Amino acid sequence: MRHNFGAGPCILPQEVFKQASQAVLDFKDGLSILEISHRTPEFEAVVEETTRLVKELLNVPSGYSVLLLQGGASLQFAMVPMNLLPEGKTASYLETGVWANKAIKEVPNFGKVNIIASSKDSNFTFVPKDYSIPEDSAYFHCTSNNTIYGTEMFSFPDTKVPVVCDMSSDIMSREIDVSKFDLIYAGAQKNIGPAGLTIVIVKDEILGKSGRKIPAMLDYSVHIEGGSMYNTPPVFSIYTAMLNLRWLKSKGGVAEIEKENKAKAYALYTEIDRNPLFKGTCAVEDRSRMNICFVMENPELEKPFLKFAEENGIEGLKGHRSVGGFRASMYNALPITSVHTLVELMQIFAEKHQ
Amino acid sequence: MRHNFGAGPCILPQEVFKQASQAVLDFKDGLSILEISHRTPEFEAVVEETTRLVKELLNVPSGYSVLLLQGGASLQFAMVPMNLLPEGKTASYLETGVWANKAIKEVPNFGKVNIIASSKDSNFTFVPKDYSIPEDSAYFHCTSNNTIYGTEMFSFPDTKVPVVCDMSSDIMSREIDVSKFDLIYAGAQKNIGPAGLTIVIVKDEILGKSGRKIPAMLDYSVHIEGGSMYNTPPVFSIYTAMLNLRWLKSKGGVAEIEKENKAKAYALYTEIDRNPLFKGTCAVEDRSRMNICFVMENPELEKPFLKFAEENGIEGLKGHRSVGGFRASMYNALPITSVHTLVELMQIFAEKHQ
Repeated sequence: MRHNFGAGPCILPQEVFKQASQAVLDFKDGLSILEISHRTPEFEAVVEETTRLVKELLNVPSGYSVLLLQGGASLQFAMVPMNLLPEGKTASYLETGVWANKAIKEVPNFGKVNIIASSKDSNFTFVPKDYSIPEDSAYFHCTSNNTIYGTEMFSFPDTKVPVVCDMSSDIMSREIDVSKFDLIYAGAQKNIGPAGLTIVIVKDEILGKSGRKIPAMLDYSVHIEGGSMYNTPPVFSIYTAMLNLRWLKSKGGVAEIEKENKAKAYALYTEIDRNPLFKGTCAVEDRSRMNICFVMENPELEKPFLKFAEENGIEGLKGHRSVGGFRASMYNALPITSVHTLVELMQIFAEKHQ
Repeated sequence: MRHNFGAGPCILPQEVFKQASQAVLDFKDGLSILEISHRTPEFEAVVEETTRLVKELLNVPSGYSVLLLQGGASLQFAMVPMNLLPEGKTASYLETGVWANKAIKEVPNFGKVNIIASSKDSNFTFVPKDYSIPEDSAYFHCTSNNTIYGTEMFSFPDTKVPVVCDMSSDIMSREIDVSKFDLIYAGAQKNIGPAGLTIVIVKDEILGKSGRKIPAMLDYSVHIEGGSMYNTPPVFSIYTAMLNLRWLKSKGGVAEIEKENKAKAYALYTEIDRNPLFKGTCAVEDRSRMNICFVMENPELEKPFLKFAEENGIEGLKGHRSVGGFRASMYNALPITSVHTLVELMQIFAEKHQ
């Protein structure tokens, strides 16, 4: 039995793997999902259902479009200012980690950037809360979950400035009020589906105001008009995302999975705090439910513990090099039994090494 | 038995479907190819092998980089001028179809475009040959195969101007002399692999001369430096492309598949020319071996013939709305027996309707 705690691309439900595998052999009348035209009614129905499931699961209000794109969050780092930041204007960014920083670096290609708060000096172990957003900002940008550092934003600012959020690593893991955001984007490869797909949820009325000529493939309006089919979409990634979103719906949707994710995070953080060998790396109030970062009081025990965990079926627990120690990524599809296994291994290891 | 003549995403070898399907269930130690990190040694080996196979199969000379990107040829339409066209300079384009035209439309975002020859007035039924490329062009851009109209370029200009070519629909179908090109790009979804992957082959020395600040994800140099892993790549599409390129190599490589493609095209064009009910739509010397467009002398018979073909297992034969009639796409993985079946159906139909 393997327990996949990898940070991503990451675990999806076993039944999704089975269905996706089957569609690679036979999606329709003996034809593989890989060899059908994206213009067939059957695949158009897949795009339609995937889009509808995103809207339904996140309760997306009217006036928003859902797009299925390529290029990952990294391409969004550029597309956001390209589409939303008029030349000479300023966008406000919250710097909460490496990915936020990468987003920040793209802004000067298009306008000015104002880093209104940062936790860089403390190696991003917390989410800054004491900041105000200048009213003349073209938009405010934040990262809801910081995969590398294990922090998560549990409140978002009330502001008249348009709010843009990179939700790559916690979208679909908890309920959010989409109406508080103007643009949400997410690489699919955590809780949505396989790598190679990017979800964008955009309030239509914020578009078309940059005064900039935008290449077609980088223009949200072009993709809205094309129904996410301006060009050949990443067919298999979309199909598998649809299967995964169907699974999420069958589980009771985002509200139900949020309960499970809370229970999973509670179980592991409780052990980290209780077990004298381990300690968390982040401010308690900002602890992510998706990526749980922790180290050992005695760093020399980290290699032996990792080895012990791996020998017992734990995958992907090694921490990112920027933080060290361990990172337990606990996306929607990770069963709570896997968390219990990890907790048990921490307990057994502590008994041996106390 | 199905015969998939679809234009794309299109047929791949059955053994590739089987291997890809299996990897969705179990790529390594029980883990799906969809749930492994792109930073695992196992997947890094996939990227390395895919890149190496592209170099080997196309005999790519030293001094060129092979990139595995996202966004399709459509994103390349913008990335090419963004990276290669200094502001105020002119790029020369050959207009041979809708895709060439879409590439042309992106140029004014970055510089000037000079359409040095076009077959638009004749609905792109031939490839212009009588043109000269101004020596002060930043580059010359052409489309080697025109999927919609069924024409293909069988010679490329000798010029000191850098040559850029969109080879989306005939790359890997025939031998090419890569050294005659400075940048080749191709959406994967014909002869390389599933949709969601784009191959770029670029001569390193032409980069870094645009004088323009380029967003990281749109900068070829960034992807070269990142070994196609600047961000999370489209894992499954790359893996399946690797399987398909392995298959191509096992068949004897591009030279051998070119022989088969010539035999397939010869069989169908011979029947089109012989059968009094059918006629080709393109100049004979420019006839594509990948996409064979033809119509009927009596347009009223087209619907009945399409129905007859479909009833006998032929998929995807309907022509593009810009041309009408039929389009038989005959990519590498289409067996010659499928072409023989189509020819036989044309003969049977002619006997009934003469």
